[in-house]
Amino acid sequence: MDQPKQKQGQPSAQAVHHEARSVENSAAYLIPKLEAAKEKKPNLTMLDVGAGSGSISVGFAKAIPEGRVIAVDLNEGILPRARLLAEEAGVTNIELRQADVFKLPFEDASFDITHCHQVLTHVRTAPDALREMLRVTKPGGFVAAREGDLDTECIWPTMPALLKFHDLTVTFMQAAGGVSSAGRQLLSWALDAGAERERVTASFSTWTYSTPQEKETWARAMTEYLRGGRMRAAILAKGLAEEAEIDEMAEAWEDWATQDDAILAMMQGEIIIQK
Amino acid sequence: MDQPKQKQGQPSAQAVHHEARSVENSAAYLIPKLEAAKEKKPNLTMLDVGAGSGSISVGFAKAIPEGRVIAVDLNEGILPRARLLAEEAGVTNIELRQADVFKLPFEDASFDITHCHQVLTHVRTAPDALREMLRVTKPGGFVAAREGDLDTECIWPTMPALLKFHDLTVTFMQAAGGVSSAGRQLLSWALDAGAERERVTASFSTWTYSTPQEKETWARAMTEYLRGGRMRAAILAKGLAEEAEIDEMAEAWEDWATQDDAILAMMQGEIIIQK
Repeated sequence: MDQPKQKQGQPSAQAVHHEARSVENSAAYLIPKLEAAKEKKPNLTMLDVGAGSGSISVGFAKAIPEGRVIAVDLNEGILPRARLLAEEAGVTNIELRQADVFKLPFEDASFDITHCHQVLTHVRTAPDALREMLRVTKPGGFVAAREGDLDTECIWPTMPALLKFHDLTVTFMQAAGGVSSAGRQLLSWALDAGAERERVTASFSTWTYSTPQEKETWARAMTEYLRGGRMRAAILAKGLAEEAEIDEMAEAWEDWATQDDAILAMMQGEIIIQK
Repeated sequence: MDQPKQKQGQPSAQAVHHEARSVENSAAYLIPKLEAAKEKKPNLTMLDVGAGSGSISVGFAKAIPEGRVIAVDLNEGILPRARLLAEEAGVTNIELRQADVFKLPFEDASFDITHCHQVLTHVRTAPDALREMLRVTKPGGFVAAREGDLDTECIWPTMPALLKFHDLTVTFMQAAGGVSSAGRQLLSWALDAGAERERVTASFSTWTYSTPQEKETWARAMTEYLRGGRMRAAILAKGLAEEAEIDEMAEAWEDWATQDDAILAMMQGEIIIQK
């Protein structure tokens, strides 16, 4: 397999991987509740926190054509890409801006729905983030979150370099202030944020990569991380692995992606907090 | 919490736990394919292997009212319970009999659909079982299997006695000839059984226990296993744990079930092999 090359003006393999996220594959757990809310009130306002390049936010905007989505991300640099995706999708009921989940620049009770995806797993004090999301949500509205549980990641076949990679990503995530078992802790965090147990629904779904196309997309994103990205520099800077080990992991992902019986799966925790 | 008591004529906590399995919660991945097959041919014949007390088989019989389900289990002793459940459900298009997945007493190409749930994870040579299931399936039909991946089990909060319990169940399963990472290996096993990659669809779903009712049902089943069942005797006979440790695990499950933030989840691998 060729090494991934990033052409001028083309999104990186990591971006392709992230932008494959949609309401259908990443927020299916809240669709019934979203549809019910829209039935009652077509002009819903929705806040999407840590929206990244906004592929899910755009899906929400399409799902509530009479409503409005405010999508925010801490990283201002990602917003132009999100605006482009929204334009390409022909979506106009969306606004993109910079904001911090811990200090959301909105009044109390501003939104009917507040959502995040793969945000809480990357922060040190997830209950504080949820408390802030609850603050900006209207009584009668809800907060929804879906977060990975990297500790449940399973990879077949068992390849030593990929097991090492898994351990490395866990270490890396924790070193960056994240929590590798976020999925299973969501319910606990919701209670810590002040939610009553009866008002929280918890569920799990999975990420699965098993088709040749899915595996190639995944492997390209992983090799890009390992070979050229910020992750390689950070791994080396932190002394978490040697150059040769990193290269071995990248080659192992390429090898893995070509194997018919190869599969990767990981659990995703989900909560809906009724306010 | 009271210790679980089994009243005369009442199913055990383990039976209650098993009989909560339904087509909807345990075979949702194959419903679209089942519906499509029924559309073409309402009088489908379906084989359900390792059907146990048959709660899923009865669901299949209801789903194909013009078709017929043959549900088999290695353990003849479970069949009367399965017949009772079928009677109670008013289902007549189901036949229950004893059979071994490795030596199915049927001609080649007898069934439109052959299904199993939590069977392959308990055998030493899963590809042989799948090969036998493929043999009795008609060309144009399909084989479907859903199997746990116990290695992905996640339990919150982290309680030492429950981690010990998890390790014990993995050891116990392996000692009995089972495979604790079955879910991730299903695709690999299907290929080993002779299936072509393009004809296999792999997916994952989860078991989740998070509501007070779900947690109580789970904890009752686990404490019953630990305190009175065959598992306790086998654990002691194999020297896998001491009496006091087993009691501590049972108490931990009872404690866990009463905690608001407690949750348990585990991935389930799924495959559909088109013949």
